[in-house]
Amino acid sequence: MTRTLITGGLVITATDETHADVLIEHGRVVAMATPGTQAWTADRVIDASQQYVIPGGVDAHTHMELPFGGTFASDSFETGTRAAAWGGTTTIIDFAVQPKGSSLAAGLDAWHAKADGQCAVDYGFHMIVSDVNESTLREMGRLVEQGVSSVKLFMAYPGVFYSDDGQILRAMQRAGETGGLIMMHAENGIAIDVLVEQALARGETDPRHHGEVRKVLLEAEATHRAIQLARVAGAPLYVVHVSAEEAVAELAAARDKGLPVFGETCPQYLFLSTDNLAEPGFEGAKYVCSTPLRPREHQAALWRGLRTNDLQVVSTDHCPFCFSGQKELGRGDFSKIPNGLPGVENRMDLLHQAVVDGHIGRRRWIEIACATPARMFGLYPQKGTIAPGSDADIVIYDPHAQQTISAATHHMNVDYSAYEGRTVTGQVRTVLSRGEVVVEDRKYTGRAGHGCFTPRSTCQYLN
Amino acid sequence: MTRTLITGGLVITATDETHADVLIEHGRVVAMATPGTQAWTADRVIDASQQYVIPGGVDAHTHMELPFGGTFASDSFETGTRAAAWGGTTTIIDFAVQPKGSSLAAGLDAWHAKADGQCAVDYGFHMIVSDVNESTLREMGRLVEQGVSSVKLFMAYPGVFYSDDGQILRAMQRAGETGGLIMMHAENGIAIDVLVEQALARGETDPRHHGEVRKVLLEAEATHRAIQLARVAGAPLYVVHVSAEEAVAELAAARDKGLPVFGETCPQYLFLSTDNLAEPGFEGAKYVCSTPLRPREHQAALWRGLRTNDLQVVSTDHCPFCFSGQKELGRGDFSKIPNGLPGVENRMDLLHQAVVDGHIGRRRWIEIACATPARMFGLYPQKGTIAPGSDADIVIYDPHAQQTISAATHHMNVDYSAYEGRTVTGQVRTVLSRGEVVVEDRKYTGRAGHGCFTPRSTCQYLN
Amino acid sequence: MTRTLITGGLVITATDETHADVLIEHGRVVAMATPGTQAWTADRVIDASQQYVIPGGVDAHTHMELPFGGTFASDSFETGTRAAAWGGTTTIIDFAVQPKGSSLAAGLDAWHAKADGQCAVDYGFHMIVSDVNESTLREMGRLVEQGVSSVKLFMAYPGVFYSDDGQILRAMQRAGETGGLIMMHAENGIAIDVLVEQALARGETDPRHHGEVRKVLLEAEATHRAIQLARVAGAPLYVVHVSAEEAVAELAAARDKGLPVFGETCPQYLFLSTDNLAEPGFEGAKYVCSTPLRPREHQAALWRGLRTNDLQVVSTDHCPFCFSGQKELGRGDFSKIPNGLPGVENRMDLLHQAVVDGHIGRRRWIEIACATPARMFGLYPQKGTIAPGSDADIVIYDPHAQQTISAATHHMNVDYSAYEGRTVTGQVRTVLSRGEVVVEDRKYTGRAGHGCFTPRSTCQYLN
Amino acid sequence: MTRTLITGGLVITATDETHADVLIEHGRVVAMATPGTQAWTADRVIDASQQYVIPGGVDAHTHMELPFGGTFASDSFETGTRAAAWGGTTTIIDFAVQPKGSSLAAGLDAWHAKADGQCAVDYGFHMIVSDVNESTLREMGRLVEQGVSSVKLFMAYPGVFYSDDGQILRAMQRAGETGGLIMMHAENGIAIDVLVEQALARGETDPRHHGEVRKVLLEAEATHRAIQLARVAGAPLYVVHVSAEEAVAELAAARDKGLPVFGETCPQYLFLSTDNLAEPGFEGAKYVCSTPLRPREHQAALWRGLRTNDLQVVSTDHCPFCFSGQKELGRGDFSKIPNGLPGVENRMDLLHQAVVDGHIGRRRWIEIACATPARMFGLYPQKGTIAPGSDADIVIYDPHAQQTISAATHHMNVDYSAYEGRTVTGQVRTVLSRGEVVVEDRKYTGRAGHGCFTPRSTCQYLN
Repeated sequence: MTRTLITGGLVITATDETHADVLIEHGRVVAMATPGTQAWTADRVIDASQQYVIPGGVDAHTHMELPFGGTFASDSFETGTRAAAWGGTTTIIDFAVQPKGSSLAAGLDAWHAKADGQCAVDYGFHMIVSDVNESTLREMGRLVEQGVSSVKLFMAYPGVFYSDDGQILRAMQRAGETGGLIMMHAENGIAIDVLVEQALARGETDPRHHGEVRKVLLEAEATHRAIQLARVAGAPLYVVHVSAEEAVAELAAARDKGLPVFGETCPQYLFLSTDNLAEPGFEGAKYVCSTPLRPREHQAALWRGLRTNDLQVVSTDHCPFCFSGQKELGRGDFSKIPNGLPGVENRMDLLHQAVVDGHIGRRRWIEIACATPARMFGLYPQKGTIAPGSDADIVIYDPHAQQTISAATHHMNVDYSAYEGRTVTGQVRTVLSRGEVVVEDRKYTGRAGHGCFTPRSTCQYLN
Repeated sequence: MTRTLITGGLVITATDETHADVLIEHGRVVAMATPGTQAWTADRVIDASQQYVIPGGVDAHTHMELPFGGTFASDSFETGTRAAAWGGTTTIIDFAVQPKGSSLAAGLDAWHAKADGQCAVDYGFHMIVSDVNESTLREMGRLVEQGVSSVKLFMAYPGVFYSDDGQILRAMQRAGETGGLIMMHAENGIAIDVLVEQALARGETDPRHHGEVRKVLLEAEATHRAIQLARVAGAPLYVVHVSAEEAVAELAAARDKGLPVFGETCPQYLFLSTDNLAEPGFEGAKYVCSTPLRPREHQAALWRGLRTNDLQVVSTDHCPFCFSGQKELGRGDFSKIPNGLPGVENRMDLLHQAVVDGHIGRRRWIEIACATPARMFGLYPQKGTIAPGSDADIVIYDPHAQQTISAATHHMNVDYSAYEGRTVTGQVRTVLSRGEVVVEDRKYTGRAGHGCFTPRSTCQYLN
Repeated sequence: MTRTLITGGLVITATDETHADVLIEHGRVVAMATPGTQAWTADRVIDASQQYVIPGGVDAHTHMELPFGGTFASDSFETGTRAAAWGGTTTIIDFAVQPKGSSLAAGLDAWHAKADGQCAVDYGFHMIVSDVNESTLREMGRLVEQGVSSVKLFMAYPGVFYSDDGQILRAMQRAGETGGLIMMHAENGIAIDVLVEQALARGETDPRHHGEVRKVLLEAEATHRAIQLARVAGAPLYVVHVSAEEAVAELAAARDKGLPVFGETCPQYLFLSTDNLAEPGFEGAKYVCSTPLRPREHQAALWRGLRTNDLQVVSTDHCPFCFSGQKELGRGDFSKIPNGLPGVENRMDLLHQAVVDGHIGRRRWIEIACATPARMFGLYPQKGTIAPGSDADIVIYDPHAQQTISAATHHMNVDYSAYEGRTVTGQVRTVLSRGEVVVEDRKYTGRAGHGCFTPRSTCQYLN
Repeated sequence: MTRTLITGGLVITATDETHADVLIEHGRVVAMATPGTQAWTADRVIDASQQYVIPGGVDAHTHMELPFGGTFASDSFETGTRAAAWGGTTTIIDFAVQPKGSSLAAGLDAWHAKADGQCAVDYGFHMIVSDVNESTLREMGRLVEQGVSSVKLFMAYPGVFYSDDGQILRAMQRAGETGGLIMMHAENGIAIDVLVEQALARGETDPRHHGEVRKVLLEAEATHRAIQLARVAGAPLYVVHVSAEEAVAELAAARDKGLPVFGETCPQYLFLSTDNLAEPGFEGAKYVCSTPLRPREHQAALWRGLRTNDLQVVSTDHCPFCFSGQKELGRGDFSKIPNGLPGVENRMDLLHQAVVDGHIGRRRWIEIACATPARMFGLYPQKGTIAPGSDADIVIYDPHAQQTISAATHHMNVDYSAYEGRTVTGQVRTVLSRGEVVVEDRKYTGRAGHGCFTPRSTCQYLN
């Protein structure tokens, strides 16, 4: 048995900030104590003086190796989870995909095969259901038993992942029965595709038109519709990658009524905008994702939503495509640009910058990035906190270090950074995953295969 | 040094539920550990198996010995804090009163004199400002330095505690400067007094008319007005004893905008109603308080507000008057009934019953009764949580015990119970205040004078 | 030339109530005068003393001979317009239907053929577009030129009239260009059909289940969605047969923003409820229509909406099916009951009863039943008012007469009345259509073929 | 008897636009006819070809000779009503003032004495109640009988006109009984006076500070409060001179609930802004009125409110003070600038310009400026429309004429124009008051004493 002791740091969880030593055995936190009061010995002592000791990040929205638009997201589970570790994230929840016409089980098996033995940190799965029908509805029960307690549906992408309102209603009813949580991509894709076709017909083919056709009102509309369908079904709802002020307003209205409705946003919506989409010379393609980046003034609403808890989670929707060879598929036709941005490595740092900038407090940082995603998806308190009994997924975080984000130095397998050149305050120093040091003082010491599939219980916000 | 160890319980805080042993030295929690992992010895070992180990309650709204309507609240600091301890509350924040025409300092001194050496558990003070003027505004800064970081104003009770909107605005501006928090009794007392006079003139003198004249719309109106004045002043606001659905809606609307506006409700609004005010034979007088009890259907909105965090705190507004000799002053004229209910002993149990009934979850119980009031009023993490470094204000709570609330068995110095005959599940077994056992297995082992004045920092929700 | 003079009545329009004589020449009002001031002579003098003189009703929503569910609405243009005249309605706007796969022109021609030479009073057409595609979009421009300036789409009835959101968006864009008005059946039919199938599978086959599956939230959702799509398209919107409080709220919210969004309700939603749908022994089938009747408490919201002008028009959605042989098609399967109610004859009387009952004022009666529908659909001031230059479509209305509504006495070609046995105050005495007396002192004096197709200009509320 | 005929114009009322001849006898409209159909003869024939024939304007808010801040509004009833006539306004409703400590009757008598024999056009009175007490409450009943059916209260101006919430509530209750309408100046004057004092203490003495201290939120707050008090009292409410978007929102929310709440705005809020208040060299004083001018972006909300009928009336709040000698009283102290702007002559023209600009339609122009104020204050259909039986208060309006507003050419007794140099399209040509021509082809032909006191019935929107 390895016994590890982290001394002298400020332990920050979603509610507490405590100067405490943390003792780790068998991959778990076994004790915490006021510094100097316990004469603990350990095999390895990590000095965290002047540092934060925080729960490892939980990124509830990643797409490693996702097939999209004829290509694949450029991070494998190996490269992606290693980058996650570098960025202080010790759990990802990735999306297994049901291929149309196939079973959920087949899709899940395929994703297990991709991830098994490859991961640097722990991982779980959600399931994208491409095809809601009698058979997949039946399978949803089994999924929950297998620790895959959340299912994603799309109101966008007709012909690919799109479910119609009847399918959504059925899936929600089924989720209500099984305890599963429906995650929704809320954009009116049927209407958007009309606008896409019209824009292309007008010769509006540049990346910035991607942002213009995917209208704020059509995100807000779909968000409202998803909420009403969830009310009819009597089921909870989690809306992914909320980007628009008007969509936040729909969530806030639902939550004021006490409905079990939740919202996630992502760093790209908090830090980037349509200004990026409009960068000259096809540079905008780097920022093409859906929901799209919005005009800068939406950012204030998102920060406010995070403060008022109308938004509860910040995930990355990490789905990287290289500019060269991948994003370029959409030259001359923005609708052919693979949708997605890299980010799994940057989330914890960008959100710490938000603390520095005064958008959120220090505990709220941990709450939206660690504790709440863990609780939302049935991983708490194993993940998302530091307490006796929790997995020792712990980050030693230097709140004073400065770093400049760059593709030249990042560890994600993608040839650009969405935040290139941005200097932020705060940096991950050391990362433990179940007690093992996977990043040590900014050296990678982990290995593919350390990370385990982690079955999840159902959403812990529902009772 | 006494070293105390609590073993085997389920430690519940606002965010975590952990099976952990808790080690106490010098009145503080020094360590927590997974049971069985540490060979801790102690002078006193408390077996908490099958029990909850929770932070001592923080009751942010009590009125011991308050002069009101020609009489005094019947609990002294001695009897009141002892009852608090019995009920699992280890910190109260009482209201010092500035007598009209006198200084804040004089009022505060008087309250210190009443409490000093009398209390079973720790206590702090808010300040009721009866007279907002140049001099008292100046004093507000000194108050904050002295650990009295919150000031209460009244939009009700013209001629007694009432401040007009100009006074309120000035006090809010001053609070904005000093970091103080304005607590508001939000009822349009000027309008209510017209309705009182008219009701009495019509011969409507029974206790139930107290509820009828203090209209829901006049609470909601005042709540709205207080919020707008706070916005003009750029100051935060804490609305006390919210009782009406329409007032919750005003708070929710403000919070959706991201305004620093907070709301408190009390057990009486959650568990009692105008049905009680209408009890025959002057029994209704037992339930006369302001804001008044509301029709039963408001309760759902209050519970919802507690779940959606539009209400953040449950305090008691403990202000007991004996039925005999005190409440009876208002026979034949409801406006002469002293306003107030006993409750400091019942709060933790009633809210645990709400957990049993499914209104709130277990951690939310601790959050609204311990953690949030501590944070709201600058006592966290000294009070309100269990973590290394926190005061060892800890309750061993038996979640399975059944008890029947009754004046015959309660410890408050008042001749009736507002919850007489109500059976609840859950009971305080043992209570520690700064590591000292003040209730041991349902025997009182505390003493007057153990409890200390606890200076408070400013509200911890403001950055 | 026939010169007709109506003397001594109280002329009521949407804004004025004036004692005035009305002089008619060439089918038009040519003059109005204070009684006794003009020595007018006339071929026919109608004494309207003690009577109201009101504009003939404009019923903007009828379905004569509509094919539905394998049968046809039981009123022909001949019987239906005669009944309209009896009921004080002198203009109907019926819905021509584009058969799927055919052109709009073909559908319109077919409806012209049905109506031509058959009608007792004037009529216009809206167009139901079953198939939004390049070709029908092009045709929409021509329609406007032909006086058919409004197009109806369905968010319900998948496989029959249903348009998806992309088709709706395209049609709205086109309406924005042509000046046409989109009329929307706003129910989420895709979701409803799931609930229908599930209800039938559970053996819930009675008429009352029709009301249960077509949920209020799914009407409100579709209303919201239609509004958002109209905003995206930059087009106005008219929502037909609004039945639910929550849908009214969506309209009110849109109108508060100043959006060109309009709402219609019908007498059945104002006077009937799910109580009727639940009548025993398949009687409920008489009340099956979509949107469905709602629980009684929605009526107050509809009346309020009519008072606050969040609803602007009351039409009938007249679409009669005989109980015997038609409604009976749905015995054992509520989804097979033809949807629709008779009402064209009852509207003016029921709304006058609402005046008597105090729901609306006298001028508002004329506004919602005559003036606004005329203006909404481009017929004003030819129809909908009494003023020099207007068509002499005039009703002499006895506000004191009492009558009992019954299938035994009504003139609609249907074997039951939805209001059987209801006694109302007020009755049509005499009706003029373009100056010709078609009902004279409760004798029918009209003829098939008097009524003419009336081309309409575009909506008069849009600038 | 003089018989007057107006031929060939387009008669515009709140609902109709009709080419019609208008025949006048005994000061009233007796008949209207399609041109060419009646062989009417007349003593005077006015050719209105190419012109609009509109009801004379009803300005429901003027302050002739108002004592304010130690001076008097500069227009007497003689000069003010003459200017009104020039501007196409044929009825004013002025505010009689109860001097503090005196009776309502005495105040009313004083105003009758000022107006009697002086006026060019008809006039009515509202009553400003400075002192709500048993005696004045009793008098309110008599006022209604005397045709003064509306009472104005102030939430601003403490020490002058201010009523506290209890007085307001009592007056509202009394209005509910008598049928009177409460008009409210809705600003939180108690809070504003604190801000005034603080601004002056900071040396902020310029006119623009008048706008800054009278905050939008304090208008909205008072509006909300007035509405809630009216709900408690069960009385209707008319809010005068609404200037802020947030206040419109309060009215809209109240009206969505179906409450009898009404709102008036004024041309200065629609056409001027804080830019004017900030004009250099004390010029801003010309624009000092309360509620104050707002930042330009509020104008859109006011126009929208007029379109959505959340605002129903545009009055002038005409209360002129000469720049020289009067406005100058406030040099060095904005709080000493007499509050008020001239405007009675400009209203009809400015609102016609709004028609030209597309803010409102032609009929809505007549509705907000003539018909609705008449109905709101019990003068309809005597005033506010053109119909058989109505007073022949008629304006021949040239919609094509251009004019430039200027103090050099206006007829108000004040040395500046708030709209100096503004060119508008449309001009009054000829004005009839009860059939007498008071302006003829832009020559004044009226006389002091023609105008009569016009007793009013109660508000016509309440049933």
